[in-house]
Amino acid sequence: MNKKTILTHATVITVNGQNEVISDGAVGYEGSVITYVGPTPEDLSGYDEVIDLKGNYLLPGLVNTHGHVGMSLLRGYADDLPLQQWLEDKMWPLEAQFTSDHVKWGTYISLIEMIRTGTTTFVDMYDHMDEVAKAVEASGMRARLCRGMIGLCSEEERAAKLRESVAFARNWHNQADGRITVMMAPHAPYTCPPSFISQIVDKAEELDLPIHIHMSETAWEVGQNVKDYGVRPVAHLENLGVFNRPTLLAHAVHLTDEEIDVLANYQVKVSHNVVSNLKLASGVAPVPKMLAKGISVSLGTDSSASNNNLNLFEELKLAAILHKGVNHDPVAVPADAALRMATRYGADGVFQAESLGSIEVGKQADLIVLNSHQAHFHPAHDPVSHVVYAANGRDVTDTIVAGSFLMRNGELLTVDEERAIYEVNRMFQQLNR
Amino acid sequence: MNKKTILTHATVITVNGQNEVISDGAVGYEGSVITYVGPTPEDLSGYDEVIDLKGNYLLPGLVNTHGHVGMSLLRGYADDLPLQQWLEDKMWPLEAQFTSDHVKWGTYISLIEMIRTGTTTFVDMYDHMDEVAKAVEASGMRARLCRGMIGLCSEEERAAKLRESVAFARNWHNQADGRITVMMAPHAPYTCPPSFISQIVDKAEELDLPIHIHMSETAWEVGQNVKDYGVRPVAHLENLGVFNRPTLLAHAVHLTDEEIDVLANYQVKVSHNVVSNLKLASGVAPVPKMLAKGISVSLGTDSSASNNNLNLFEELKLAAILHKGVNHDPVAVPADAALRMATRYGADGVFQAESLGSIEVGKQADLIVLNSHQAHFHPAHDPVSHVVYAANGRDVTDTIVAGSFLMRNGELLTVDEERAIYEVNRMFQQLNR
Repeated sequence: MNKKTILTHATVITVNGQNEVISDGAVGYEGSVITYVGPTPEDLSGYDEVIDLKGNYLLPGLVNTHGHVGMSLLRGYADDLPLQQWLEDKMWPLEAQFTSDHVKWGTYISLIEMIRTGTTTFVDMYDHMDEVAKAVEASGMRARLCRGMIGLCSEEERAAKLRESVAFARNWHNQADGRITVMMAPHAPYTCPPSFISQIVDKAEELDLPIHIHMSETAWEVGQNVKDYGVRPVAHLENLGVFNRPTLLAHAVHLTDEEIDVLANYQVKVSHNVVSNLKLASGVAPVPKMLAKGISVSLGTDSSASNNNLNLFEELKLAAILHKGVNHDPVAVPADAALRMATRYGADGVFQAESLGSIEVGKQADLIVLNSHQAHFHPAHDPVSHVVYAANGRDVTDTIVAGSFLMRNGELLTVDEERAIYEVNRMFQQLNR
Repeated sequence: MNKKTILTHATVITVNGQNEVISDGAVGYEGSVITYVGPTPEDLSGYDEVIDLKGNYLLPGLVNTHGHVGMSLLRGYADDLPLQQWLEDKMWPLEAQFTSDHVKWGTYISLIEMIRTGTTTFVDMYDHMDEVAKAVEASGMRARLCRGMIGLCSEEERAAKLRESVAFARNWHNQADGRITVMMAPHAPYTCPPSFISQIVDKAEELDLPIHIHMSETAWEVGQNVKDYGVRPVAHLENLGVFNRPTLLAHAVHLTDEEIDVLANYQVKVSHNVVSNLKLASGVAPVPKMLAKGISVSLGTDSSASNNNLNLFEELKLAAILHKGVNHDPVAVPADAALRMATRYGADGVFQAESLGSIEVGKQADLIVLNSHQAHFHPAHDPVSHVVYAANGRDVTDTIVAGSFLMRNGELLTVDEERAIYEVNRMFQQLNR
């Protein structure tokens, strides 16, 4: 018998199809599945546990659709550099020294940050992915994981990476009670020869998995693609059959209107990494245009090395205000649209729209509670506005994934922060810088 | 005899001329004045109180150089609208109903937000300023206050506003142990007839006070200035003698290179309101160009109605990343420059560079402590990077103004948050919307 829990007396921000907000609402769940959403019932006798949220905000957990959690080990190591120099001179030489232990502890500090700031599902593309999967399993988080494949190496090494990706998918897809799922991830058009991308697409087809890839993050990369292959990245990936698979693109900063149409036609999903794109000087993605064409644009932090945190509330607010400012359009990305990007569209981005992204009966109980009894949430008349424009990840007091508390009243229940901080410093000191 | 206090074992981020960071550092102060900055001394016997900061970050308090604290009463009331419509259809009709009590409680929730997120000095331009000054005095905060004068009214009303401004200056300048100072504030070129601005400049001269004014926030406003007066706002204010007084401009979004040169020549100070300018779709100020010309560009939240909070750490990070992204320049506004904008340049902006803005002997003990024992501050090798790119206002545990704790270990000591939340909701409900 699954335990029956109900959270009562909350301001429930459902992010359902009607953007319903329920005052004095309640959410019940049995095991990991939501069974009730509505006003707080008078009769609570059918529940094993009743938790009074005392008017606090209750939201679906946020979905972070692009990142590299192991890289939190390099937080603040090399700021204020251009992307290629940052990658080639700083990140890659240190990452080449990473062992499983580096990735393990980088992952743990990342999980802590995400749990504390209300992310319940994240996408990760990296190396040593077994360590990431084990940490996700142990922590209770939900993740869509992929072994990122950079193809700037010998054919043998490429083959080995592909074998590793396939093994990772076979070992981990739908594991941890379904909390872990997998995608296949060629790193980017500029780091993978076309033949390698084709091989990966074939394997994704065979395993029936989506594809996750960086694309058109910088103007340099787009120019390079045209130089090398005669077409821009969207046509290049289309020609290689990538978009015949369900695909999640990271970045998509430099796009023509025609390219946006192509992505919309293939129902490609996009992860908008607004902080990282600004910090690395990559530019501003055409988000209002993509949203207008019906593309599911979700939010990603990218790694702590280019952000430099994993607090998705920063992306939420910035996605809501940046496009207004740079397009001189005060209604570009209104508050409710930004909130959908952080939740429902995130569920689209991990191809789990049926089970994640909103508070609805039948969906997973991935929920977060924000302490609304603070000055910056008052006057209290518009909770969605406050969550998008006034809130902060640190307002999150409780994080629930699949019906289990990972944080309760601000206390982490599944990970040891002190140990993780100790280990991440020890690991960083060992690197040859 | 003033009490002698020393804060020990801190990572002291001084923001002094050499951007010195002291590991295992200490800061001593006597009364309100800093008397020691250096390594933690062995002999602490000369101090009345010794507070061990256990490796936490110790910084100068942040300076918020533009806002309207009374408007927090309208937080979230009218989002996603263009500036003129937002002002004329939404803000002004409600503000016209404001009594002293509305401003008092709007001020209190604002003070709570600022104290919680590490602001120790703020600039305010509004109405019912006696209430703001009384709340600042009672709370222990530091502020540079001005009665904002909108001149779109009869000559009699303008004269009354000017008299009120002068009386406010006479009553409050250098009061509350010097924590309150005053400026004279014509609201903006587009809301004040030139003759009114001239009168205000004369009064500022007579009282020896600086001038604070909104300028070139929107392209509309610049066009209107050219239409009405034949010149852009910078030339207009120069012609009216404004820049012969020490002047702090709010916004300065739409500037030509020639206008930047004029501002630099007059040593005009600029408050960059990066969140508000994006949210209201006003645009992106040419901050890197202004900094390159030696202009002191500081940071302002503007009001909670256009932000929608007063957490200056958001401005700090966004000022560091936005200009990189929109200028495609990854070294535009590096971390240390952004931190200077939030501190030293803020002290310039309130014309108190000699006493505020950095941790140096002889300056005021306006200090904040950040809890560095959290995952997002690790690995721990670059504190300035972490404060700018990874931190959040909610990492602040202690806020000290003029040597007195306004918040200690996360607990507010001088203001009653529960009461302020109750009153601000009661006041908001009374408004005729």
